[in-house]
This record gives sequence, C-alpha cells and structure tokens, in this order.
Amino acid sequence: MSRRVISVIVTNEDGVLSRISGLFAGRGYNIDSLTVAPLPQTQFSRLSIVTRGNEKVIEQIVKQLHKLIPVYKVMENSELIEKEMILVKLPLKENFNGLDAILKAYNGTITDGGDDYVVIMVADDVSRIENFLKIIKKYNPIETIRGGSVAMDV
Amino acid sequence: MSRRVISVIVTNEDGVLSRISGLFAGRGYNIDSLTVAPLPQTQFSRLSIVTRGNEKVIEQIVKQLHKLIPVYKVMENSELIEKEMILVKLPLKENFNGLDAILKAYNGTITDGGDDYVVIMVADDVSRIENFLKIIKKYNPIETIRGGSVAMDV
Repeated sequence: MSRRVISVIVTNEDGVLSRISGLFAGRGYNIDSLTVAPLPQTQFSRLSIVTRGNEKVIEQIVKQLHKLIPVYKVMENSELIEKEMILVKLPLKENFNGLDAILKAYNGTITDGGDDYVVIMVADDVSRIENFLKIIKKYNPIETIRGGSVAMDV
Repeated sequence: MSRRVISVIVTNEDGVLSRISGLFAGRGYNIDSLTVAPLPQTQFSRLSIVTRGNEKVIEQIVKQLHKLIPVYKVMENSELIEKEMILVKLPLKENFNGLDAILKAYNGTITDGGDDYVVIMVADDVSRIENFLKIIKKYNPIETIRGGSVAMDV
C-alpha cells in the first residue's frame, strides 16, 4: 500500500466532488488529503488527491473516474511535483531561538499574531513539510493545519 | 449570495468527505474550493470549504453537518484567517522584468524549472492571491493551479 498522488481536471459541475469522493468511499479507499479549486479563467477545476493503494487499485480508480464524471485529464505520481502549505500557531511564551533560520530554510514567514501566539505559514515540497513538522515540535505548536498536497505536472 | 468560509474538524473515518460534499451537492450549493488534510498527531482531519450563500443557507448547512457526521468543531468566516498557495508555470521565453520584485511582495519563490518553463510558488492571504493572479497575467502563464483556501481560527 504505497502513497499515490492523483491530479484530476474536471468540469465545474454541481456534485462532481461528491461523486469523486463517493467513488473512493464506495471502494473503501481512504483519501489522505484532497485539494480542489477552480482553474482560473476556465470552466474547469483541478483536484489533487493523496491516497494509499497498490498500482492495480489506482488503475481501477482512474478508470472509474473516467466513466463516472466529465474528467478532462488524469495525471499520476511520477509526472507530478507536489507542494503543500501549512499554518502553525506557536505560543508567544516559547523561546523562538533558531526559528528565523528554520523559516528561511522552509520558505516560511510569520503572517499573523495575537496576544499570546504567532501564526507561521510555510510552503514547500510535501516531503520537506513532513520534516518541518518534526522540527517545529520543539516550539510546542498550539495548532497545525496542513493545506494538503497541491500537484502540478512538469 | 456572499462568499463564505467554513472550517470543519472531523474524525478520520471512511466516507466523511463523501458525506460532506454530498450534503452540499444535495442542496445545490456549489463548493468553490475545498482542502482537507489530517491534523498531525490526532485522529482528526480539518477541512476548509469555500462556498456561496446567504447566512440562512450556511446556518442550515452547519446544522446538517452536525447531524450527518462526527463533527468535532465548525468555525465560520469572521473568526478565520485564510491563506492560499498557488503554483504558476511561466514560459522561459518571457521577459521576466519585475518578476523578482513581485515574488518578494507576495511570498513567492521559483521552485522548479524545465527546458522551457519555470514554476513559481506563492503563498499569501486569499485576497492578495486574487491580486497576484491579475498581476502575473502579463508573463503569460502556461498553467495556474490554486491550492484552495486554508483557514485557521485566530
């Protein structure tokens, strides 16, 4: 059961997302992360879906996708680069020693703040984000929101 | 019909996304963008959903969400900050005059490249991303992928 990334371009129709997620649920395949947003200046939307399964399973899903909905294009794993944006809320009472250097290394910035916290935003390769999440633990994050994998074919 | 952002924390169960998107589809409410990813080190996932509708409609959806699935928490518009990451593929043949300054202004970097293109990644407030998309047109983007709104309560 390896991690798979599928990128799908669909026409903007009501219920497309419902049918796609229903396809995964109906076959018992969990969606680890999903992002969907319109493709600017078109009538299409683009989805990036991260799931787990063997090659055969993914092949079946891709076939079903084509049958089920007006899919314009499906791309897979090897052709794709994957980026992710995350938001992390850190308590202001922490010692932020070294944080600036870490943010620099991971395309990170401090974007928002409140009485007793700051919010940092980091965007990088998904594999590097995994690493960042380990590093940031030492600052005792209050909350971490992952934006999900966004895939582009290159 | 104003733009609304809903952030939902749900337990990681098979089919949760399918039921949520089904709820929107069943009532004829389009989902403009959606992101879902696991909350690190928990059994929860967090969704950010952008939709359009009046206050009454959104109230109904939130009520239905609570009935339909094991929802841990629902947050709305005013309590949330919204960030988005986008990927833009630009043709190398373009004159990139001014691009560096624009990237600096919008937390952007050049992350990947090929024979005849570069990929830029930008992460910023959703409203600023909308602006960036207008500015970047002059470089004749080959492809633009929006990552969708990622919301955090502050």
